[in-house]
Amino acid sequence: MRMYDIIEKKRDGHTLTKEEIDYFVEGYTKEEIPDYQASALLMAIYFNDMTIEERAHLTSAMVESGDQIDLSDISGIKVDKHSTGGVGDTTTLILAPLVASVGVPVAKMSGRGLGHTGGTIDKLESVPGFHVEISNDQFIDLVNKNKVAVIGQSGNLTPADKKLYGLRDVTATVNSIPLIASSIMSKKIASGADAIVLDVKTGAGAFMKNLDDSKALAEAMVTIGNRVGRQTMAVISDMSQPLGYAIGNALEVKEAIDTLKGQGPKDLTELCLTLGSQMVVLANKASTMDEAREMLKESLTNGKAFEQFKVFLSSQGGDASVADQPENLPQAEFKIELPSLSTGTVSNIIADDIGTAAMMLGAGRATKDSEIDLAVGIVLHKKIGDRVKEGEALLTIHANQQNVEEVRQKLYKSIVVTEEDVPAPTLVYDTITK
Amino acid sequence: MRMYDIIEKKRDGHTLTKEEIDYFVEGYTKEEIPDYQASALLMAIYFNDMTIEERAHLTSAMVESGDQIDLSDISGIKVDKHSTGGVGDTTTLILAPLVASVGVPVAKMSGRGLGHTGGTIDKLESVPGFHVEISNDQFIDLVNKNKVAVIGQSGNLTPADKKLYGLRDVTATVNSIPLIASSIMSKKIASGADAIVLDVKTGAGAFMKNLDDSKALAEAMVTIGNRVGRQTMAVISDMSQPLGYAIGNALEVKEAIDTLKGQGPKDLTELCLTLGSQMVVLANKASTMDEAREMLKESLTNGKAFEQFKVFLSSQGGDASVADQPENLPQAEFKIELPSLSTGTVSNIIADDIGTAAMMLGAGRATKDSEIDLAVGIVLHKKIGDRVKEGEALLTIHANQQNVEEVRQKLYKSIVVTEEDVPAPTLVYDTITK
Repeated sequence: MRMYDIIEKKRDGHTLTKEEIDYFVEGYTKEEIPDYQASALLMAIYFNDMTIEERAHLTSAMVESGDQIDLSDISGIKVDKHSTGGVGDTTTLILAPLVASVGVPVAKMSGRGLGHTGGTIDKLESVPGFHVEISNDQFIDLVNKNKVAVIGQSGNLTPADKKLYGLRDVTATVNSIPLIASSIMSKKIASGADAIVLDVKTGAGAFMKNLDDSKALAEAMVTIGNRVGRQTMAVISDMSQPLGYAIGNALEVKEAIDTLKGQGPKDLTELCLTLGSQMVVLANKASTMDEAREMLKESLTNGKAFEQFKVFLSSQGGDASVADQPENLPQAEFKIELPSLSTGTVSNIIADDIGTAAMMLGAGRATKDSEIDLAVGIVLHKKIGDRVKEGEALLTIHANQQNVEEVRQKLYKSIVVTEEDVPAPTLVYDTITK
Repeated sequence: MRMYDIIEKKRDGHTLTKEEIDYFVEGYTKEEIPDYQASALLMAIYFNDMTIEERAHLTSAMVESGDQIDLSDISGIKVDKHSTGGVGDTTTLILAPLVASVGVPVAKMSGRGLGHTGGTIDKLESVPGFHVEISNDQFIDLVNKNKVAVIGQSGNLTPADKKLYGLRDVTATVNSIPLIASSIMSKKIASGADAIVLDVKTGAGAFMKNLDDSKALAEAMVTIGNRVGRQTMAVISDMSQPLGYAIGNALEVKEAIDTLKGQGPKDLTELCLTLGSQMVVLANKASTMDEAREMLKESLTNGKAFEQFKVFLSSQGGDASVADQPENLPQAEFKIELPSLSTGTVSNIIADDIGTAAMMLGAGRATKDSEIDLAVGIVLHKKIGDRVKEGEALLTIHANQQNVEEVRQKLYKSIVVTEEDVPAPTLVYDTITK
């Protein structure tokens, strides 16, 4: 087999076999196939796409390129959730204890990562004492005992994907549905998930800016998952504005606590119920989405989800009292309100720019070695469609610096108030359950 | 400027600016742009093509990447001819003295190269004493004095094209009209040609197998040439079977001598008149193709072209007496006829396979260091459309080895004789003179 022939075949619009895809992924991972041949193939895939079979083979080959987490000692169907990423996305903090409270085992492997705020682990570490430095055995024991635990990413997972992503990033081949879909799915599968729920964001603040692309990506991932024997469902949800009100690490933990008490923002609660229902059904804990949703709603109102969160925190060393006294979470020194300059309706909140403002305050990492300030961030008071009066606060900046002029200016540019009424955007555009 | 943005722009079907193309070609030549980004761009060009302007900019950028031969000290319009390559293509040996004999200056820079037979220089070196190791000044003096001289390739011509060709060759991006056209044209322009005549071969023995592709390539090159200020014309000629009868170095020199005496094969003579007419018109030595053709025909019949050839040979140390006594050219020890196994009409002569057979005899180089046997090769006696009787010779193998069984078998497989009559193929499909 020759890499040249594989490039030529894809260039000419033919379908690659499992053997050819394996040859490429294995050879590239072992550095036997040079970058320049890999990038030519990636560009040919960009133009000529991949069939369902090819996507599944590519996913499997990337899974097999490295370690695979074995969760078989955990009883039950392990369901993982993945979000394509947005601003103020607190769903994982809520979903993990929420679905665990109705019996779904959640064995969450999570990262820190770069971005507007920290990753799930950073956020959880704003709870004093909480840590993810536990052994694999402890992790599995905790999930078996409490139904939920979080561990940091370890092992050499999907090295092929890491290497290919690095190459795509510098050769303008990131934005290809088959390549994005197999990249995400390979990571989830290598992490040991039996079933997967995907939250594909759509809109200005998302990687996929329009609904058609988001749907195509969601369908691609659901198809891959089911094809490689992992039941997969997806939700396509709005990211034209930030989700919920809080953007920032401790601020999002507080919002998660509110939500687990049944007092969270409407959009965040609704999205968690939608995603959670899919997780519960995939875990075989309910037979219909409606049944699953009722179970989850009950758990939010009767305190079970909230209790589950406290057990989860304390089982990993965290001070569970913050759930009852959120003021014990890290607090920023300065709280600066941003008053509206006019009376009207909020017509746009540019999610990306709000996220960047949070990062400027110190909530996120610009580079791998940046330090995060867990206390800082932004709390919105208005969302798209809300009425606001001149002088009324649009949001509060939580800062550990007194001079936030640059951030204020950026925020003013990211929130538009108009005279006309504007409807709130649709939250869930579609669910893909096939 | 960033290479990433250039790849993305071409990927998305937009037109690159001169500045972007210069940035890429210069950066890649200087190894500031890595192979993996270059190959991604090449594949994007493969899919999204280049406009006329882009092709011209790419050609100019490759010309400017290295040395450019200065022929300004030669008086008159220097016209160069380029063939896209075929089997038994003796045209250069004939055209150079032929058009020189009517006053067109021919300053030919030529190579040895790989292939079925040697290059123009190898062929000429079968004339005892002939050599191309002359200085640039001698070269220019000779052309001014005799209107024709040949020199070996020297200098660092179009390094960008060399590097890009090497990359295209391993990334399945050779077969792209804008890339082929700019590659060929950049080499001709860097070699100092004022005007260019292109012989684009078409058919089973050519790089371009079908007429549409050949036309597209010819038109692309003619457009580039004219766009960058070099008048360019093209002929699309048949390469379904070898051109003329001889395939081999000394054998082709003998065929060239015959042709220059007006006694050459019909197809070879006709193609030389067609290409030659374009050269004469571009050199402003005739105002119409018909006028040019008459001048050239006269030169073939009145001995002027033949005399010009002898002057050319002796001016570069060659023994011009071979023109009158071709038996003084290197002779192969064994001449083995290949008798037809049936009576009928020759319906196919697979040019590529005949070429390979000549190479197996030692006529061409398989690798850069192979030695060539100037004497050996193949002389066809029949071409497509010719009648042949059982036992009559289809061709003669000229070999320096007694056992040519493998070559015989290959040749029998490459020549098809059928019962039905078959017409001779069209020789010149089209001329592009715009």
